Formats: sequence, C-alpha cells, structure tokens
Amino acid sequence: MTDEVAVEPKSGKSSNHLAPGDVGIVVPHDFVYSHPFAFKSGQIIPGFTLRYETYGALNATRDNAILICHALSGDHHCAGWHKAEDRKPGWWNNIVGPGKAVDTNKFFVVCANVIGGCQGSTGPASIDPSTQKAYGIHFPFVTIADVVRSQKLLLEHLGVSELHAIMGGSMGGMTAVQFSIEFPAFVKRVLAMATTARESAQAIAFNEVGRQAIMQDPAWNQGDYPRDGGPRVGLAIARMMAHITYLSDTSMDRKFGRRRTTLQNQEGVPALDAPFEVESYLKHQGQSFINRFDANSYLTITRALDNFDLAQGYTSLEKAVACVQSECLIVGFESDWLFPPEQNREIALALLKCGKRASYAELATDLGHDSFLLESEELYAIVRSFLGRKTNATDFAI
Amino acid sequence: MTDEVAVEPKSGKSSNHLAPGDVGIVVPHDFVYSHPFAFKSGQIIPGFTLRYETYGALNATRDNAILICHALSGDHHCAGWHKAEDRKPGWWNNIVGPGKAVDTNKFFVVCANVIGGCQGSTGPASIDPSTQKAYGIHFPFVTIADVVRSQKLLLEHLGVSELHAIMGGSMGGMTAVQFSIEFPAFVKRVLAMATTARESAQAIAFNEVGRQAIMQDPAWNQGDYPRDGGPRVGLAIARMMAHITYLSDTSMDRKFGRRRTTLQNQEGVPALDAPFEVESYLKHQGQSFINRFDANSYLTITRALDNFDLAQGYTSLEKAVACVQSECLIVGFESDWLFPPEQNREIALALLKCGKRASYAELATDLGHDSFLLESEELYAIVRSFLGRKTNATDFAI
Repeated sequence: MTDEVAVEPKSGKSSNHLAPGDVGIVVPHDFVYSHPFAFKSGQIIPGFTLRYETYGALNATRDNAILICHALSGDHHCAGWHKAEDRKPGWWNNIVGPGKAVDTNKFFVVCANVIGGCQGSTGPASIDPSTQKAYGIHFPFVTIADVVRSQKLLLEHLGVSELHAIMGGSMGGMTAVQFSIEFPAFVKRVLAMATTARESAQAIAFNEVGRQAIMQDPAWNQGDYPRDGGPRVGLAIARMMAHITYLSDTSMDRKFGRRRTTLQNQEGVPALDAPFEVESYLKHQGQSFINRFDANSYLTITRALDNFDLAQGYTSLEKAVACVQSECLIVGFESDWLFPPEQNREIALALLKCGKRASYAELATDLGHDSFLLESEELYAIVRSFLGRKTNATDFAI
Repeated sequence: MTDEVAVEPKSGKSSNHLAPGDVGIVVPHDFVYSHPFAFKSGQIIPGFTLRYETYGALNATRDNAILICHALSGDHHCAGWHKAEDRKPGWWNNIVGPGKAVDTNKFFVVCANVIGGCQGSTGPASIDPSTQKAYGIHFPFVTIADVVRSQKLLLEHLGVSELHAIMGGSMGGMTAVQFSIEFPAFVKRVLAMATTARESAQAIAFNEVGRQAIMQDPAWNQGDYPRDGGPRVGLAIARMMAHITYLSDTSMDRKFGRRRTTLQNQEGVPALDAPFEVESYLKHQGQSFINRFDANSYLTITRALDNFDLAQGYTSLEKAVACVQSECLIVGFESDWLFPPEQNREIALALLKCGKRASYAELATDLGHDSFLLESEELYAIVRSFLGRKTNATDFAI
C-alpha cells in the first residue's frame, strides 16, 4: 500500500478536521492481552498489545461493528487525524466517516495494527520480557490466521458480539476472508478487495527480493539493530520496488511519463543518478517509509503474506471456504497486476460453488493494486449498498 | 534477459557441438577502433574495442550479413560454444545456426557486445588511457544511438556493404530500429521483438530500483572498486528484481508455484530465509549474474535503456521513423508485461502510417518478456520467412 494515496479532503485539510463526513481528531488505544498467545507455528508469547482506533459507537445489541483490516504497510489509523497539524488523514479516510460509504453514524468501526507490525502493536521491535531485548528475528512466525485470532480477542474485549462486516484490501482482504473461515458465525459480511486466495510465485518473488535487500544490508545484523537504526538502505530498496507493484504502467505513465528532473551535471549532460521524475518519486517513497516502518516487521509481514494460502490443509479452495456463513463480496480491479482480477474472481467462484451468498465486482480503474485506496464513487456505492444489505445468517448454517 | 533460458540441444550438448544445426565451437574476436569516438552526449574516448563473433561467411557481394543485437545482460556470444566443456551455448543458439531460422549456411551473422558493456567491449571497467585507471562512472553516458554507431564501424571493418537484416529482442530490438533510422540505406530488413519505442515510467522505475540497490551498496564506492569486487550484493538484488520482470506470473506459477524447499529450522518451523523454490531460484540468478557482470556497466546500460525514446528530438514517432527504408517486422509477445504488445504494435503502426513496408506479429506465448529467447516453432517460422522475403529498397526512397 502506498502512503501517498490517502485521499485528502479537496478543500484543504485544516478546515476539514471537524467537517461533515470526517471523523475529526482521533485517539489510538492499546488493547493489552496479558495471557499467553500461541501462534499457528506453535511459538508462544506471554501476551501482546494491539494498537487500535474506533470510530462511531457500539449499539446496545453490540452487532453494528465493522472491522477494517489493513494492508502490508498500513496501520490502525484508517480515518481522521491524530492532530490538527497532520499532513494526511488515516489511510481510508475517503471511505470511513459520518455519512461516508462506511458510515460511522451507523457503524462502530474498529481498525487495529496487526500483530507482528510496528505501529504500536506487538512485533519484532517490541521487548521480549524473557530477555528484556527486542524480539528481532526471534519474534514468532506470523500467519494471517494469527492476525485474525488476535483481532478476535480485541473485538471480544470491546464487547462486540458479532461483526456486521469485516473488510479490507490486499492483505486486509486476506484477513477478512480468513476471519470468516476461523469464526464463521461471528462474521455477517465479508468485503475483500484487491486480494487473493494465495500468494502467487510472482508475488512471493517480489517480496523475497525486498527481504533480500533488507537482510543483505549489513545494518540488518541478523535482525539485531537499534530502534532508530537498522537496514534503512535495504528497507528503502524493498519499498521502492514494492511500490511499483502497487501502481500500474498506465497510471505511472500518466503521473510521470518520461518527464525529467532538472538534475544535470555541470556540462549539462544528464547525470546518472536521477534524471526522471519517477525516480525521484520512488526515492522519496523509500525514504519516507524507513522513517515509519521497522525492517524486521517488514520481513515478518511479507512472510505472513507469502505463506497465505486459504486452501492449505484442505483438498481445495472450495473445501476451505465451505464453513463460511458470511455474505461475501469480492472486488477486483482491472489494472491490479499484483493480485489481478482472476485471483479475486477465484475466491467468489469457490464460495458460489459451495452455495454461499457470494458476489464479485470488477472495477475498471487503471490505478493498479492501490485502486482500493483511491477515490471512486463506484466503489463507494458498492460498499455502501453491500453494508446496508439485509442478511440472514441462518440461511447459511451448515 | 535471463541467463537460464538459452535452449540447449535436446539430446545433450557434448555430442552436439558439431552436430547439424549447430555452429559448433566459436572464437570471439576483438575489433579495435583506434580513433576518437564521440558519444551523443559530446563526451569523447580515444578509441574502443568491440568483442564480437561471426557465424557463416560473407558472400562476394558483401550483402548477406545479419547483425544480431543483444539485450541488457546479453553479449556477443549468441551461438555455438566457446569450449567443449561449456554448460550452455550462446544465448540465441536455438535460432542461429546452419539450417536454423537464422541460417548460417546462407547468412554471415555478426553479434557484438555493446559499447559500455563488460564482456570484452570497452566499458566502465576498461582502462581509461588518460588516467591508467578504470573509467568507472567517468565512462561516457551511452545511448542506443552510440551502440548503433559503434557497431556500424565494426560492420565497415568487416567489409559488410549492407545489412541483409538487423534483429534483436528487448534492447536488441531498440538497437535494430534505431540502426535503421541512423543508417536507412544500409539496412534492408529490421526484425525487432519484445521491444518498445520508448521506456515507460514503469520500466524506468524498475531500472532505477536496481541502480539504487547497486549505488547504495557501500562496496560500489562511487563506482571505484576492484575488478573482482564491487557492489555484489546490490548487483544481485538488481538482477533478482529485473529477472521477475522478464518472466510472467503464469510461467512462474507453472515453474515454481508455491512449492517449498526443505529448508526449515530445527523445530520444523518454516525459516524466514528461503521456504519457497522461487526464492532459491532468484537467489541463484542473482549470484550467477554477479560473477559475469560489471555493476558500472549495469548502471550505464540501464541508463541507455531509460533514455531510449525514438521520438525524442522529433515531433512524433512517425516523424522519427519517416526516414526508414527497411522492410520491418515487429513481434510482440502476449505475456510480455515489461514491453507489452501495445508498445510493439505502436512501432509497426508508426511505420505503416508513414507508408513503410511494416508488419506486426503477436505471439500467444505465456512466458513473458523472455519469450523471444525461448523455443517456438512459430517464431522460427516467422523469422525464417521474413529473412527470406524479397525486398526492393528503392520502393522506400523518400
């Protein structure tokens, strides 16, 4: 997920923090779970923290909650502003707010930073109580199922009795579908976008190059580095490369084309190091990322992505989703080549084959994988009506 | 271009060095040009060497020559074997040889390592006579037009009076089209595959990440490193990433899918560093590349690619190709997402708009950009018949 794409209010943010349609200033909270937590790998940590935000209010019947799941580099801050000076709002501020597609006047919206992450939730940069040092590479191997189970504990803590919906794009979409498999009766609606039932070899390959860039950086030091140090060069390279996979050839050509920066050497010869605008843009992306992301978390979460395979342990994808009781909507984006439409369609098809109430929408954006984050009245309309749709979970009882 | 894809004779190489259809053991030659050579940038070197190979014989009228142009990581060794123990033949051995699509019984085939390269031709690793040290980053800024002009000098040296054809894929395709613009009357046929009239923002972006990986490696040292040292980590990362762009999602899924290596730690937990086969494959690609390629050459040649824009200096692509006198065939490959079919079609269209004898073929392979290197009877048939086609250059005189 890019960090540049959060759609800001068009009339300028400073006057909009408390504008209609915006959740305004928000405060993150910490959910501290003080019991042992066993990962799917069998590894156990003595407890964990999830940093999260909520918008709107839980109703008396405790069934109007929507869990929003973030992508690889996202976090719990999906709507509103932390302080008036913030340059950008939360990453899904265009879709979450009073009167918006995810209407916080109606719904109690929850978003948590994933376990293994680095934005306040327990992850490799957190202190291991048994050693009083950061976990580093000794942090347990995280899977999307672990992300699901830890967030279920948060929802229980918040008193949520069932999810009106769970939604997300990319890794967030994986999390949404996995959640409805782990806790079928708990989830009424699944809205997964720009996602896949399993990482393809190509997606794994890109992640692996990013991990190699990090791990081959001497400053990675087997994952043992100071909080403000670490493999900044390798992490920036990983991010630059990944960022290309979030966009499309068309959108990059429209945004940058072959325009050059003015950087030339004294003889007026194009310099080797940055003549094209797209290069400066990518470098900026890399640099801004290293100031907000932990390299060991990047390794951990990309591994969770690569290991994601809904059908693993089943004989087929259909068997894997056979237990789902949720109403499901899968949304693919035509220009997404990281998790292309056919990978999204496949999920809907497997659900339909099992007789589930599943649907698929394909939107004709040309903005690549990040399309799910960008302004789209069509997407808003789909989300709004899906969330408003009546459902009867007993139809799906197995 | 991958170095794994050269198609070896099916019955095993050792018995095939002198088999029908194979050019057998070949010896590279050096063309030493001892006069000042001015690059398009205005920079001048006092002379240069091009390493090249030839297969077949120049006829009495000196008009049966075919110049083959290599891609980014290719070289002059496109057919045959250097010695009996070689693991692999030249990179286009499947298409060049006696009786093959590029028939060395009929044609005098020439292939040279590009200027700026590192396989024997003068490039950044060569000694600058004025300093007695390697040029390093002081090597002139290379463009595809410079590649063309240096190879034209080689052809004159070889006594070639006109090119029966010029052909190549990827950068080789760029070189072929550029050659027919620089020297219209000299080139009878152009066969350009898996190529583009200009690098797109996405292609530039991938190249830039590779360059950053190299230049951020401390061992790069501003391009000043020992011949057997240098930014091996950065170069391997660059190569791994680029390699993904030469394949297709489909071909990677077929070749590797989600198969895992057996690498696990003692507890049987998947280790962070290489559980998927595709990861090991990419690492191998990176490691084998650093043993044969110079990092400064990689910077130089990717810059030449990025700066490639046929229309630059003209008001349109049509204006740029208006001088072409060659019969042209452009071949795109359906699954090539680095230089996708539409970018190939665009070249043919511009030529057609100018009334040139141009054609376009699109092949339905699913092997990605590297399709032009792989076994394909369809491609062989197209190449063979195009090279055999009668042409009358006077038709095209402007």
